[in-house]
Amino acid sequence: MALDESWFTETVDKTGTAFSLKLGERVHAEKTPYQEIAIYRTASFGYLMTIDGCTMVSTRDNFLYHEMMSHPALHSHPDPRDVVIVGGGDCGTLREVLKHPQVRRAVQVEIDERVTRLSEQYFPELCASNGDPRATLYFGDGIAWMKQAPAASLDLVIIDSTDPVGPAEGLFGRKFYVDCLQALRPGGLLVQQSESPLLHLELIVDMHRAMRQAGFAQTRLLHFPQPIYPSGWWSASIAQKTAGGLAQRLEPAAIAALDTRYYNAQTHAAAFAVPNFVAQALAAG
Amino acid sequence: MALDESWFTETVDKTGTAFSLKLGERVHAEKTPYQEIAIYRTASFGYLMTIDGCTMVSTRDNFLYHEMMSHPALHSHPDPRDVVIVGGGDCGTLREVLKHPQVRRAVQVEIDERVTRLSEQYFPELCASNGDPRATLYFGDGIAWMKQAPAASLDLVIIDSTDPVGPAEGLFGRKFYVDCLQALRPGGLLVQQSESPLLHLELIVDMHRAMRQAGFAQTRLLHFPQPIYPSGWWSASIAQKTAGGLAQRLEPAAIAALDTRYYNAQTHAAAFAVPNFVAQALAAG
Repeated sequence: MALDESWFTETVDKTGTAFSLKLGERVHAEKTPYQEIAIYRTASFGYLMTIDGCTMVSTRDNFLYHEMMSHPALHSHPDPRDVVIVGGGDCGTLREVLKHPQVRRAVQVEIDERVTRLSEQYFPELCASNGDPRATLYFGDGIAWMKQAPAASLDLVIIDSTDPVGPAEGLFGRKFYVDCLQALRPGGLLVQQSESPLLHLELIVDMHRAMRQAGFAQTRLLHFPQPIYPSGWWSASIAQKTAGGLAQRLEPAAIAALDTRYYNAQTHAAAFAVPNFVAQALAAG
Repeated sequence: MALDESWFTETVDKTGTAFSLKLGERVHAEKTPYQEIAIYRTASFGYLMTIDGCTMVSTRDNFLYHEMMSHPALHSHPDPRDVVIVGGGDCGTLREVLKHPQVRRAVQVEIDERVTRLSEQYFPELCASNGDPRATLYFGDGIAWMKQAPAASLDLVIIDSTDPVGPAEGLFGRKFYVDCLQALRPGGLLVQQSESPLLHLELIVDMHRAMRQAGFAQTRLLHFPQPIYPSGWWSASIAQKTAGGLAQRLEPAAIAALDTRYYNAQTHAAAFAVPNFVAQALAAG
């Protein structure tokens, strides 16, 4: 059947796929200096924010993405004190990061302040920790921010950006990774959303290569379900400044205290289980 | 944007979601005594078979479903010799089952012979093992077949059916599970596709309850990505005739010999990692 305007549809011509959510109605739309943002009330996923026609965040399923962009990387670092989130304007990743008592400073560097203001309005639960004294909401260019970051001042860089086209393109390249590397302390980690293992495997391989070319010692992939993103299967890539195994800080009491809906010690390990076809592509890359 | 007829779209009104694949063209359509089957050539997923408007199998991503409906359950049984597949007419699950040298007999009980004949034509790779001397392709009603199955004659029942509406509805209830239980040997397992953890959690809870009410000692959930199914995140449920831990037959050489694209020892374990919100629902159910 054909879909009419009572659905929000994100079509991805390159992958020949589309995902739709029944509306509701569009409750907000604006063109910022950076992008077009819209907010919809959907029939079954709560609110949906889109940027340039791509699904960004929904009330119902954002917990998957936000938990898996933060907790696996935080528990893979022995002592993550200083964290920066590049992008992440909906503040959901920031909220998860601040659940970790070790974190003493978390800076969210979002280029488009309107994303955050709209999130405060339509996704207030994601902004619940914006007033945390450890949090800084900085609105500006992540690439410029990272270039001037003091050397060895960060433990974890989380790149929670839109797709590698438009404003976020520069966040997926060797030059930016070099700046991240110098801003990280020894043992530091970078984690970046890296699209769908099924649909964007070539991009994932390119990203890992660029991370290593930038000087990162090792890269890892993790993956998790994310229904509103293309294919419903999403990934993040971790780059390690220093070679060696990742920390596995999986104390039951600390994990229980996170009060997560998807993440636990089992799903932490599960996220790092690399399917054969992905392992083969990464090994060949 | 609205989607026109150059896309195949499966809409699920109840969940307010839709998934679309760019076409290609429709290369076949027929109404059988049981259902409407169509075959499309898609732009990026190879061929797509649909039944009653629902995506069933695509060339590109069926490996996820077929591997995860078979290998985790087969490796959870200490010695799976006699296997029956209820449904599974595309023969992809049968092909995976027959990769296991322990299996001495695999019967595929598909109600609609046309599904298999069309799979032979458009998905010949899935039918590559149909001539295996251990395989029997039986076309008939799975419920009736199970009712007359000799007691304690099977080690593994795989229910690889369409959604629990229409012809497959009877495969999701206590009565059918009772018949499966009596047909299983001690230590036997039933594994059934159980829809999306995000969208159909209530159904999953109901299924596990019905399995236990039928007399199965224990139930488990496993999950995996499946992009063409609603939400892109799918599950299977295992019911154990006998209480206790599942066998973990994960010998590296045996797993390598399966020549799988998603499945390996890591993804085996990952599939059984139950997210908190699912564990809570199952515990309350």
